Amino acid sequence: MKSVKAFAPATVANVSCGFDILGFAIEGMGDWVRLEEKDSPGLEVVSITGDEGKLPKEVEKNTCSVAIQAMLDHLNVEIGMAIHLEKGLPLGSGMGSSAASAAAALVAANEFLGNPFEKKELLPFAIAAEKAACGAGHADNVAPSLMGGFVLIRDYHPLDVIKLHVPKGLYCTLLHPHFELKTADSRSVLRDSIPLKHSTIQSGNVAGLVAGLYEEDFDLISRSLRDVIAEPYRSILIPGFNEVREAVKAKGALGMGISGSGPTLFCLSKGEEKAQAIADAAEEVYQSIGLGVDVFFSAINTRGGYIIE
Amino acid sequence: MKSVKAFAPATVANVSCGFDILGFAIEGMGDWVRLEEKDSPGLEVVSITGDEGKLPKEVEKNTCSVAIQAMLDHLNVEIGMAIHLEKGLPLGSGMGSSAASAAAALVAANEFLGNPFEKKELLPFAIAAEKAACGAGHADNVAPSLMGGFVLIRDYHPLDVIKLHVPKGLYCTLLHPHFELKTADSRSVLRDSIPLKHSTIQSGNVAGLVAGLYEEDFDLISRSLRDVIAEPYRSILIPGFNEVREAVKAKGALGMGISGSGPTLFCLSKGEEKAQAIADAAEEVYQSIGLGVDVFFSAINTRGGYIIE
Repeated sequence: MKSVKAFAPATVANVSCGFDILGFAIEGMGDWVRLEEKDSPGLEVVSITGDEGKLPKEVEKNTCSVAIQAMLDHLNVEIGMAIHLEKGLPLGSGMGSSAASAAAALVAANEFLGNPFEKKELLPFAIAAEKAACGAGHADNVAPSLMGGFVLIRDYHPLDVIKLHVPKGLYCTLLHPHFELKTADSRSVLRDSIPLKHSTIQSGNVAGLVAGLYEEDFDLISRSLRDVIAEPYRSILIPGFNEVREAVKAKGALGMGISGSGPTLFCLSKGEEKAQAIADAAEEVYQSIGLGVDVFFSAINTRGGYIIE
Repeated sequence: MKSVKAFAPATVANVSCGFDILGFAIEGMGDWVRLEEKDSPGLEVVSITGDEGKLPKEVEKNTCSVAIQAMLDHLNVEIGMAIHLEKGLPLGSGMGSSAASAAAALVAANEFLGNPFEKKELLPFAIAAEKAACGAGHADNVAPSLMGGFVLIRDYHPLDVIKLHVPKGLYCTLLHPHFELKTADSRSVLRDSIPLKHSTIQSGNVAGLVAGLYEEDFDLISRSLRDVIAEPYRSILIPGFNEVREAVKAKGALGMGISGSGPTLFCLSKGEEKAQAIADAAEEVYQSIGLGVDVFFSAINTRGGYIIE
């Protein structure tokens, strides 16, 4: 029986100054999707593990089946596939959980069908799945989860996605505190209009961040990792935000920001040793304020989702 | 008698999506400043040509003397210098006329004093001169005029100026229509606050432009050369804006935008041949609407201001 298994990584969207336009992928954390040939045509979500029973198995609601169905519709193909999803990522954490499921499903299905698509061409199907899962068809998680690296979503109409250069030695530490922050709440605190001055500051920083990535200038990356648009409002919703930032900065973090819409925080750093020290320091702060936390660090994933079986 | 002469180039500030944070320098158009030793201490603006008598010679008002005085104050040096300014740039055109004068004056004075400063270190003195000349201490003209190339002003507090990579073969065509547009008028049409959505679009484009410069991806540069913040309001003040844009796009312009606060328009293109064709096509449009225009094209100046004698 034909069977394919793929992995797709966790991702950090927004990246401080890159609000709604930047995302990057992490090594070693993510979701797995296994597809099996099925006798009768149509998709079926057979098993989901690691979600505490929270994710829907209905084909028209599950992010994996929605993504694959969008691909099959595009190809005008009818085929039978049984879908097995293993969640490695916590739900609603701001680590691109639904995006990783969709990306893994699409990488697996593409292989299953003999790779009719380049990875970048899978993006519209993943965006359709994000729309089903989150209500909005954002690409800043699915694009890096599929393609890897640091990804810029320059535009949606038409979709224009650019994979940026990633300097060697760039590490990320993820801090996932044990409390729930609803994306809707995190979104609702944002203002619909902002001072022109803030827009100029944000533009300067995102331009500096992109230049810093290409120049491999870690100081410039650090100076540019500021967000004057979302963070001032969202950080208030995240316990310990300022204390954690102070602690990780003292350990050499280039910057710290909110991953996606939170509550997970991300830190960038130069080298694995600092990434570890940052994780330790942050854990201590969370302990002192009585909040459980999962910490994780890794290099930037530059290959995106991939086949493992 | 000791004498030094320097040239500093015209510049394009804003660069569409780079509103208030980007600028670049042009080859072959600019201002010249000659400094001569003077027996008595103090600065004196002895001659100005090419300004139709419009520029002030008072030491505390002239952009050259203000810039040099700021440098001398910083060094705590008293010295006698006679200043001769040759304007190659029209005033109030949006080509960084006052910035080129200040930059040429500073490059000359630095040489005169045995080069105590790196070029980048001259920037604060040039900004002081811009403040005297324009009322606002912007750096997006003086920085490229001094340093050359494409320059990002990431921040002013503290000043953070980054010279970006410039792809080979990038040309600029300047179109200077014969009518006056006051900077104050051009500034007054801007909104103090803007939709968050527009800020995100602008950020995506400036990130795309910077990536395009580093990747030497002319298509990406072209897709990114859009301004949703200033151009929609300012273009209304510029006769023929849409007609010229249509004509230059048809000749292969990567993009067209307002140089600084106008009325000069800039076009970027790949290669000299297209830059020439764009100039010709634009000239024809201006002729058809009965407006005089000076056209000019050149490669990007990557060295900034320099000593010529």
